This record gives sequence, structure tokens and C-alpha cells, in this order.
Amino acid sequence: MATSGSSSYEIEKLQKGCYYEWMILQAKHIVDLKEALTSQQSNKNDHKLGELVGEIVDDFQKYTKRRSELSHQSCSSYFAPSWNSSLENGLLWMGGSRPSSFIRVIYAMCGSQTETQLSQYLFIKIDENIHENHGDGSMSQLTSTQLWQINELHMKVIKEEDKISKKAASLQEDAADMPIAVTAYATDLVEAGVAVEDALDKHEECMAVLMVEADKLRFETLRKIVEVVTPVQAAEFLLAKKRLYVSLHEWGRVREERRFGCVRADDAAAARGGAGKSNGSATR
Amino acid sequence: MATSGSSSYEIEKLQKGCYYEWMILQAKHIVDLKEALTSQQSNKNDHKLGELVGEIVDDFQKYTKRRSELSHQSCSSYFAPSWNSSLENGLLWMGGSRPSSFIRVIYAMCGSQTETQLSQYLFIKIDENIHENHGDGSMSQLTSTQLWQINELHMKVIKEEDKISKKAASLQEDAADMPIAVTAYATDLVEAGVAVEDALDKHEECMAVLMVEADKLRFETLRKIVEVVTPVQAAEFLLAKKRLYVSLHEWGRVREERRFGCVRADDAAAARGGAGKSNGSATR
Repeated sequence: MATSGSSSYEIEKLQKGCYYEWMILQAKHIVDLKEALTSQQSNKNDHKLGELVGEIVDDFQKYTKRRSELSHQSCSSYFAPSWNSSLENGLLWMGGSRPSSFIRVIYAMCGSQTETQLSQYLFIKIDENIHENHGDGSMSQLTSTQLWQINELHMKVIKEEDKISKKAASLQEDAADMPIAVTAYATDLVEAGVAVEDALDKHEECMAVLMVEADKLRFETLRKIVEVVTPVQAAEFLLAKKRLYVSLHEWGRVREERRFGCVRADDAAAARGGAGKSNGSATR
Repeated sequence: MATSGSSSYEIEKLQKGCYYEWMILQAKHIVDLKEALTSQQSNKNDHKLGELVGEIVDDFQKYTKRRSELSHQSCSSYFAPSWNSSLENGLLWMGGSRPSSFIRVIYAMCGSQTETQLSQYLFIKIDENIHENHGDGSMSQLTSTQLWQINELHMKVIKEEDKISKKAASLQEDAADMPIAVTAYATDLVEAGVAVEDALDKHEECMAVLMVEADKLRFETLRKIVEVVTPVQAAEFLLAKKRLYVSLHEWGRVREERRFGCVRADDAAAARGGAGKSNGSATR
């Protein structure tokens, strides 16, 4: 693990860059998926749609590989990234989305859960422009076999999530063990010392390993969903998932801006007046 | 839930103030506990020590009540607070410490786990000034009955943590459900709209309820530990726990400063030069 100031700063910069590159790629995926779904409607070319879906799944794997490389050098920031809003960080599981939530997106789309009627109403009502066009292959017409397979996958994914969550819990508990707790207890001087620094580095490395495991589960869940559904359904699912991801980022940002807008205004006023009344520490 | 800019800013300020007041109180508790342990050594007045322990446990409950009041108005920030370092946020469980980690502190102190020998070596080695003095009542001499009770409590607490974690997991999954997912899917415009804003408010309220539940578990765990052990052991435990908490805050801050020290220097240079080369967005 890198501990010098400059190299760790470089890593944080690379982590943030990696995230924003991924966000830009997601915006491109959204455009590509929309175009491909519209074009499939006239030419019924499932093969091309399947290729695009495959590329997008590959892109996700590449992203997780890059994250993994960067996380081994400094992992903590992935667990509550500074580039996320509080809303997103509150939704974070092991540095990303819960893979089980991918399946909930499918349920929301096909309205197979208890809220069936409302879901169908909403789905048909607000998604006429896309939904009407894809006919038999679309997500609202999953077969019972597909639904059964998706449900099986859901159960498996929840179990795997639980396993990883338990490992993370035990890792969190370990922080209250030696040498950390004992060093903390031994002295009023809150200097970490070599033993504690090593233990904290080791803690971050273990967290990185868990994040990689979680990323693998995210990728595998995605891959299996795409296997179960048709190319049209896969494209619809990926479009929904990506829009949800991008929207949550934006909604969180807007909510935060609404909350802290006045702080920033205060800071700006203080800076202009040179009064130093606010040090901006309340902003993120 | 408060949604207007100014009132939400006020709440965030109150949340942060509440946290720093608590940190100041913890520093006071550390001093009080040390003094009381030293004085108990000569006067063997367990009653006075017991009173202090009771007050400290009460103070924790008061703190959780205040947090609860503030969390109902804006909860997300408690799940990755801006006043924490990445290290601390990575260790966070439901907006605070894992109650099971309280028990791990006891294990680390009495060396009852697999690392017994190392623990005892470290404990005796570095804590001579406090440890030697408390004689038979001290944490290293927990009876087998006490250890059994602590172990029972550990198992129960882990189960309760699991229950709350599962509720949080299902809450996170719900975010991928209606109306959020469906609204996100329906349009390229990432405006939230009333239905989504309501759903996000509801989501934050549910998170607040879970945090209160977790705080209750933290308090109950503390209360039960204090019930099982002697006043001297309780004071030693609280001292260790508080020092760990304060140390982790400080160690995280120092590690972050070492990592981002150079960023701040860059920002300062950019600001002085007015070159606007850095916008400081990489800092937290």
C-alpha cells in the first residue's frame, strides 16, 4: 500500500478519474442502447443487439478490473467516495451497488412483485415511447421460466451478498482488536506508531480484497441476467439499470446542492469580504 | 423531512455540532475515568467508580437521543459523515460503531481469544502504568462466568446486527424499485419529480429508523457489558473503548492529511497565483 503523500494523492486522482470515465461511458451506453432498441424495432436484428449487450457487460468487467488495481493501493475512499452524494453513499454496498438491486430493477420493470398492478400501470403509462415498440421480446413479457431463473438467481445473489457482508462485519470488528485497541488503550498520545499503521494498512488491503469479491459478484450477476433474458430484454434491463445509476447520482447531487446551496453562498460572501467567518468545513 | 435549503443546512450544522460536542465529552470522560481508576487504587471506592460509569452510559444514551432527533430530519449524512475520515467511514456500521466491536475490545483487553499470548504480552508490556494498579478487579482477570456471559452477549449482538443489516440491505434494494427505477427508466431527463423526491425522502426516513434501532443496540450492548463486569472493569473497558474511538478519528485524519497534504498545498499555490489550475474538487 502506498503511504507517501504524493503517490496516494495520485491514486485518489486516478480513482476519481476512473469513476468519471465510467460515468461518461455509461452515458454513451445509454445512447447506444436507445439507438439499438429503436433500430431493432424495424430490422429485428437481435444479433447486433446481443453484440452491444456483450460489449457493455465487458466494459463493466474492465471497469471493475481497473478499480481493483487502484483499490489495492488505497481502498478506504471507495467505501464512501468523495465524488458521491450522501444519498449515494447511503446506498453503497462494498463500494458499489448491491447486485441484488439489479434484479429488483427487473422486478420493477416487469411488475412481477406484489405491486404488480401499480407497476404495470406506471410502466405502461410513462414508458409508452420505448415499451410499445419492442413487442414480445420486451421485459414486461418475461416467461415463467425466465422469472423462475431470475428468482433463483436473486436468492443466490442475496446469499452471496450475505457472505461478503459477514466478512466485512468481521473485518470491522477486527479493528477493535490488537494491536489497534491495545495501542489506543495504552496511551493518551494518539500517535499511531508502526504497529498500528501496519494494522490499518492491512485493514485497507483486506477491504480491497472484499471490494474485488463484491465487484466479481456484481459482474457475475449481470452476466447471468443477460444469459437468462433475450437480447431485447437485456438491452432494456441495461438501459434501466444505467439510467437508474446516472439518475441517482444526479438526484443526490441536486438534493445536496439544495441543502448546502446557502452554505456555499455564505462561503462565497465570506471569501469576498475576507472576513474568514466561514472555513467551508461544513461543505463536502 | 426538511427539504428547504436553509433548514437542511441548519440540521447538518446541528448534526456536526452534536458530533463535536460528543467528542469533547469523550475527552472529558477519558480524563475522568483515568482519575477515578487511579483514585480507586488507593481508596478502593467502587461505588464512586460505579457512579461515574453509570453517568457515562447515560451520556451515551443522551447522545443517541439527540442524534435520533436530528436524523429524522436528514439522515443520509450520518451514513458517511463529512466530519469522518475515509478510514472511519469504512468502519462505519449504520452510522456508528458495530456494537459487537465493543466486545472485541474486551477480548483484546483480557486476551481471551486465539491471540491470547500475544495479547497478554502486549497488554502487560505497554500498559504497565494503568494495568498493574487495578489488581483483582481489572479486565485481565475476568472470571470464567463473566467471560461466558460476555460471549453469550457477543453471539446475541451479532444476531441483532445481522437483523438490522438485513433490513438495511432490503432498504437498499428497494431503491431499485418503483417509483425510482421506473422514473429513471422512463426518461433521459434526470429530473427527480415529486414521486421520486417523496420516495427518496421516505428512503431517508427509513434509514433514520434503522439508525435509531442500531443506536439502541449500541446502548443496550454497553449497558449489558457494564452489568456483567465489576466497576473497575467497566471503567477500564470504557476507557479503552473511548480511547479507541478518539484514536481512530485522529489516525484517520492524519492518514488523510498525509495523503492529501500535497493537494492542499497545490490548491493554496493555485489560489495565491490566481491561476485556477486546481479547483480543489479532489479534496474532501
